[in-house]
Amino acid sequence: MNNFVLNPILENDSLFLKSLELCDLRLLKDGDLDWFLLIPRRVNIKEIYELDACDQSLLIKEIDLISKLLAKHRNIDKINVAALGNMVPQLHIHIIARYVDDRAWPQPVWGSKNIKKFSEDSFDFWKNII
Amino acid sequence: MNNFVLNPILENDSLFLKSLELCDLRLLKDGDLDWFLLIPRRVNIKEIYELDACDQSLLIKEIDLISKLLAKHRNIDKINVAALGNMVPQLHIHIIARYVDDRAWPQPVWGSKNIKKFSEDSFDFWKNII
Repeated sequence: MNNFVLNPILENDSLFLKSLELCDLRLLKDGDLDWFLLIPRRVNIKEIYELDACDQSLLIKEIDLISKLLAKHRNIDKINVAALGNMVPQLHIHIIARYVDDRAWPQPVWGSKNIKKFSEDSFDFWKNII
Repeated sequence: MNNFVLNPILENDSLFLKSLELCDLRLLKDGDLDWFLLIPRRVNIKEIYELDACDQSLLIKEIDLISKLLAKHRNIDKINVAALGNMVPQLHIHIIARYVDDRAWPQPVWGSKNIKKFSEDSFDFWKNII
């Protein structure tokens, strides 16, 4: 039995794309950037090291999968991959497309404000691919 | 043959602790926080997805190892794990101890200024453990 419940902030800030073997893949409602969240469907996990070895192995494979999709479909300059969790403790991994002319470059993008409003077109684009 | 050369900015900003199977483990010269860098000894790698599956598997194991050491020896509130590389392209993974009263909490710590000056005591502490 798995009593996993998605954190309500993550739920509100992002849209569900797909269930992978370990993680739910979601798209953050960011108007400027392709910004994915990988959220392991495990209960009471805040840190990567709290996942068992098998889940860690799945996690790196899913990071690889989504990063490769991003690199294939967008002409990115960089991918930022991060597990922070300072605000939302439930373990979630950010995978973010970055560009040398994006709104925060070369700084991290957390906390910077959207230039454009989020459009469902971006969600539809990824939903069709993934 | 491995022609890996450490990026000079990473070299200047951190101190060598240990060679793990995939990565060099280094301690960033941060006065406030235990801030590790894991740098895969691979040539021309900027992204996690550019590592082959075997190296990715080693990487997640080394992230696990260092995170567990940090959690064992410090009374941390959170660990931030991130591969950004917006400023230094050579792939390096940050593993950073975070506290609810640290200088940047709950924001990411990149770009925030040290309160205390870096002390070799911190380096000696980890060198003895690792």
